[in-house]
Amino acid sequence: MSTRLTYLGAAGYEIVGPAHRILIDPFLSDNPLAPCSPDDVETPDVILVSHAAFDHYGDTAAIAKRTGAPVVCDAAVRFMLLDEGVSADQITATTWGIVVEVAGVTVRPVECHHWSSGTLSDGRQVVGNPIAFIVETEPGVRIYHYGDTCIFDMRLIGELYRPTVGLLGCTLPKELSHRIPGPATFLTGEMDADEAARTAEMLGLELAVACHYLAPDEEVDRFLALVPKHDTTGRRRVAAPLVGETLVVDADNHSIEARIV
Amino acid sequence: MSTRLTYLGAAGYEIVGPAHRILIDPFLSDNPLAPCSPDDVETPDVILVSHAAFDHYGDTAAIAKRTGAPVVCDAAVRFMLLDEGVSADQITATTWGIVVEVAGVTVRPVECHHWSSGTLSDGRQVVGNPIAFIVETEPGVRIYHYGDTCIFDMRLIGELYRPTVGLLGCTLPKELSHRIPGPATFLTGEMDADEAARTAEMLGLELAVACHYLAPDEEVDRFLALVPKHDTTGRRRVAAPLVGETLVVDADNHSIEARIV
Amino acid sequence: MSTRLTYLGAAGYEIVGPAHRILIDPFLSDNPLAPCSPDDVETPDVILVSHAAFDHYGDTAAIAKRTGAPVVCDAAVRFMLLDEGVSADQITATTWGIVVEVAGVTVRPVECHHWSSGTLSDGRQVVGNPIAFIVETEPGVRIYHYGDTCIFDMRLIGELYRPTVGLLGCTLPKELSHRIPGPATFLTGEMDADEAARTAEMLGLELAVACHYLAPDEEVDRFLALVPKHDTTGRRRVAAPLVGETLVVDADNHSIEARIV
Repeated sequence: MSTRLTYLGAAGYEIVGPAHRILIDPFLSDNPLAPCSPDDVETPDVILVSHAAFDHYGDTAAIAKRTGAPVVCDAAVRFMLLDEGVSADQITATTWGIVVEVAGVTVRPVECHHWSSGTLSDGRQVVGNPIAFIVETEPGVRIYHYGDTCIFDMRLIGELYRPTVGLLGCTLPKELSHRIPGPATFLTGEMDADEAARTAEMLGLELAVACHYLAPDEEVDRFLALVPKHDTTGRRRVAAPLVGETLVVDADNHSIEARIV
Repeated sequence: MSTRLTYLGAAGYEIVGPAHRILIDPFLSDNPLAPCSPDDVETPDVILVSHAAFDHYGDTAAIAKRTGAPVVCDAAVRFMLLDEGVSADQITATTWGIVVEVAGVTVRPVECHHWSSGTLSDGRQVVGNPIAFIVETEPGVRIYHYGDTCIFDMRLIGELYRPTVGLLGCTLPKELSHRIPGPATFLTGEMDADEAARTAEMLGLELAVACHYLAPDEEVDRFLALVPKHDTTGRRRVAAPLVGETLVVDADNHSIEARIV
Repeated sequence: MSTRLTYLGAAGYEIVGPAHRILIDPFLSDNPLAPCSPDDVETPDVILVSHAAFDHYGDTAAIAKRTGAPVVCDAAVRFMLLDEGVSADQITATTWGIVVEVAGVTVRPVECHHWSSGTLSDGRQVVGNPIAFIVETEPGVRIYHYGDTCIFDMRLIGELYRPTVGLLGCTLPKELSHRIPGPATFLTGEMDADEAARTAEMLGLELAVACHYLAPDEEVDRFLALVPKHDTTGRRRVAAPLVGETLVVDADNHSIEARIV
């Protein structure tokens, strides 16, 4: 048994386990490095959306409408999907702690210290509560998606839910900075490399995976260097896939093999 | 002296201490097990509402209008109450940390890691900040109401405000699941039994009370079993009242007697 | 080298370092003790606004329009500034963790456990995510502005970003209580004196500065007494400037000299 994680760029992942296909934060049509178009994504068992920011919400509405796949998200994303014509029967809004099951996939939403807001077609602001997700794709492979959180004390999440693989934002996709209005330069993402490497330690991960970029940048390199530095277990692995690459993850004696194909 | 806590179902409690009558999260008219109707609730000194979800906001507007009782709540609930015609003079919105006094009752709002949102009669979304409450009804009886929080590190709340009785959600009222749209099955509430039992330990409670159900379910049974397991004090009590039952709580040498009447 | 911090009242500060002039939460025209009018404030390099509450948002729009200064804020404040006619080119919205640079000033937004909401001229509610700020004005002078947070475990913020000076709310400006509707009496601010003194310890501050008042009250006195009590370093200083007074802060061998002028 193994689980394949294909990086779509930004915070997007297609996760294919022995039993299920899960799509997270599919940002494709405005993604210059997208490995596929929203029209070509295989029908997932479930789409998970962490929050309403454009580089996470992405093409969720189009994919949901084309495939009929159910979506698990926060209330802001639900408002936006309804606004784009996705059926209410497809959308489950949840929030921190409320574990849901859909199409056989058990989804655990955990705290994400960020925020979630979008604008409807009539100009109204909608606001929700951003989500980080944990899903177990096979015994011993528990995948944490950070959902754009900043750093906070995640030790309790690590102790209680023991994620083994973490998809951790450690920079920001600078190729998209022109879409953010205002005079300032954005120096970091919600976490920088050092903060993300520290969360890998707090979560007790076996494999820490860089996230929230298009082309890898210096922060991604720093993440690769800092994860081992903050590792007190001596066995943590680290990876930073290129967009379109796939990690193959196995659970065996609590170890994990990561391979970029 | 003693304090009586009558369970109204969901997260609803009527708390009657030596000096005051406090109503929390009164969800009655849509509650199939409600022990009383909103028309029959005795006039409280104050109504506390944790957030705008329907099973917490409940019949607050009707009770506030009939009794004239003041309401302490978050901003989303305040918007909804104004929308339903409750006088602005009756409503105080507060948030984490801002201790308020109304009708002689001192109310301490503490962090609640959840969210609060409702819809006004014109369709607009309003959003606030959910609240957990601590009230001292008599010397040594400090009651914590969880307000629908998920688990987080509550040790600081325990150390600073030393609640003795905690009303802790440990499941979800499955009888109400049909009111939540979408394809997923909700497996847990914002906290499951194990998480709630751990918060009892972090808060240093003397009495941990199950909350957030109508008819007790397996999670409530698990809570009764797990609270002692996570108890490092050796003296923590646990209770899970049926809707309509009353706990009688006394403070004596820092011990508490709980009795279901 | 030294940095001058002039207290404007409420949570307002003008911070003038060797290289930059930073204005934070400028609440002046409705402030009966304001040391200057919004028309007289010197053009800052950047205005930082923690959240949309009236005593923090204050005169930001007027000052931004008159001076053309850039504003770093949350999304709710951004909506309000746009509504008041401030140019989108002047406003950068950020959130926890996303470090931004504007006019040579590096601004680190950190978690602020509060909430941010305002009302636009057409009556719509807008909601954002409140911000606490850390700025380094000169080597060794790292100033933390609490942004109206309640107490939480800030040790991670202390360890990672090592603020040396903290502007910490420890009470509330009672002179403004009449502007808050509702029947309750507000007994504390988002932090009381003890909570604020504990955050000084968690942050590892060298200088703890009282904040969130107009005329100093008993809580400010308690803060002056409690900061040393919670200090495990033996070298923490404490100050509570009058509105209009200036603290002069130097960094020398990791010590800081505070002087009220």
